[in-house]
Amino acid sequence: MSVFTKVSLEEATRWVKQHYSIGRVVNLRGIPSGIENTNFFLDTDQGVFVLTLFEKLTASELPFYLNLMAHLSSHGVPAPTPIKKLDDQFLGELNGKPAAIVSCIPGKPTDKPTGNQAHLVGEQLAHMHLAGQSFEGELENLRGKAWWVSASDEIYSFLDEGDSELLRSELAYQADFGAQLTPRGPIHGDLFRDNVLFHNSRVGGFIDFYFACVDAWVYDVAITVNDWCINADGSMDDERLHALVNGYSSVRQLTSAEVEVWPTMLRAGALRFWVSRLYDFHLPRPGELTHAHDPESFKRILQGHQARPKIFNF
Amino acid sequence: MSVFTKVSLEEATRWVKQHYSIGRVVNLRGIPSGIENTNFFLDTDQGVFVLTLFEKLTASELPFYLNLMAHLSSHGVPAPTPIKKLDDQFLGELNGKPAAIVSCIPGKPTDKPTGNQAHLVGEQLAHMHLAGQSFEGELENLRGKAWWVSASDEIYSFLDEGDSELLRSELAYQADFGAQLTPRGPIHGDLFRDNVLFHNSRVGGFIDFYFACVDAWVYDVAITVNDWCINADGSMDDERLHALVNGYSSVRQLTSAEVEVWPTMLRAGALRFWVSRLYDFHLPRPGELTHAHDPESFKRILQGHQARPKIFNF
Repeated sequence: MSVFTKVSLEEATRWVKQHYSIGRVVNLRGIPSGIENTNFFLDTDQGVFVLTLFEKLTASELPFYLNLMAHLSSHGVPAPTPIKKLDDQFLGELNGKPAAIVSCIPGKPTDKPTGNQAHLVGEQLAHMHLAGQSFEGELENLRGKAWWVSASDEIYSFLDEGDSELLRSELAYQADFGAQLTPRGPIHGDLFRDNVLFHNSRVGGFIDFYFACVDAWVYDVAITVNDWCINADGSMDDERLHALVNGYSSVRQLTSAEVEVWPTMLRAGALRFWVSRLYDFHLPRPGELTHAHDPESFKRILQGHQARPKIFNF
Repeated sequence: MSVFTKVSLEEATRWVKQHYSIGRVVNLRGIPSGIENTNFFLDTDQGVFVLTLFEKLTASELPFYLNLMAHLSSHGVPAPTPIKKLDDQFLGELNGKPAAIVSCIPGKPTDKPTGNQAHLVGEQLAHMHLAGQSFEGELENLRGKAWWVSASDEIYSFLDEGDSELLRSELAYQADFGAQLTPRGPIHGDLFRDNVLFHNSRVGGFIDFYFACVDAWVYDVAITVNDWCINADGSMDDERLHALVNGYSSVRQLTSAEVEVWPTMLRAGALRFWVSRLYDFHLPRPGELTHAHDPESFKRILQGHQARPKIFNF
């Protein structure tokens, strides 16, 4: 369950009436997903919103995410739009937690994307990158290379020899991964299938921007491909791969430098999620066990990229 | 017809691809309403937007309207959201005209509002006023008292003696109407039934903010009531009147000063539209004839308010 902080209908009604212009609250429904925050669907007589209480992120970290979502929304990129309070601020406090209300993105995620859906996601991801160019916020990747290394140090003791060796050697291979990669700007960082909602055959919106940061655009594309274009056995689905990358390229062409690092980026994206899943699996925080994803799938993806490097050639 | 400036699908496609992050244009449909601007529905593979070419308003006047819509949207007030270009600006230029793209508000207007709809409109209008408090833009009412007087001077010659006398005496009665009226802030200024779209039994949004300005809130309520709560014979429909005013009051209570000027505000709102309709009727601009509204209805409303002043007593 993911409602870590309880909020009663009366509390939400009073808080919204005092601080917002979004109508009268008529219902509040806990959202049983999400491992970082407490989320509710908030129904008012004017529409449906999402109320989030931030359980770990603090009021000093949150402006990057909220301002980025607002920036992207203002550019027409379908992202949750943070709603300003009467004091013109996004962030408030409810029941002792930093809290914000965002617009509710219509639609549902897809588990088995079509080529057309992969194309739309690629296109929209490129639009997100371009729209983010004028965003002035800065946040380094909190799940970047420094984190891979420190998290790995904590999990080696849980791994068998083969996995330890795979992890060590891949970290060594990625030693150069870093800030020299350009072009860079705001990235989603976690654009998996469950973070894209489809509505009426379109991208209803990208959600869950709480791994967003400033990093290399091509790395964001690789992270996305690693989820959208992978078969159950860890191999790449060429149709979806081509569709997603063609969608992206139809909006923004990759540079030759990006094309060159593409195989390395696919491996880096697989490494990042293998490490975080190993970490969540072996060092779970209370209340998260039911959400721990299987680390093995990203190990297979990483091994696939090692064995069969995918040249970027579209 | 209201497409004053032609735009081809190819021109729109190129312009959007160069400047925006809203997807690939797939269709462009002229909107045959509006007397001030050229409007198109703009379909992209990511959604439906509205493209507006401003025929009279200039790039120096437009920021107030666009920034106000953006401000209200960011507060969750359902208004068209102006979309920022890649250069982070709302306003561009297309075929020699200032041009902007805004989100498409879902829904349809209602010609025969129910009490519940009137209630929702009142509630939403109050939210709009409160959300506008933190808006920093300034624009005087370009259809305010100074305009009533100057426009009247141009139309007296078209009027019979009775209408001339009615106009003169009402202008004299409203001589004190002005900037001393508080509370004030951004008002819609033209919240007639055709400027409110309903969607799924909710207010989909307010549209057409191009008469918005900074003026007295209670005057905005009166303008709204004069359209929403009037019967065909010019008399007031008490059910809708109560519903709208109760909706407004449920969000923001009128002050005693506002209650006191309420009957005068109803007359001022009727006068403003009687004058502008007389003006458009007798001094039409080319291409506008088909949109000229009958001035008589607002004359009847004004006379009704004179004969049967409505005390604000809810």
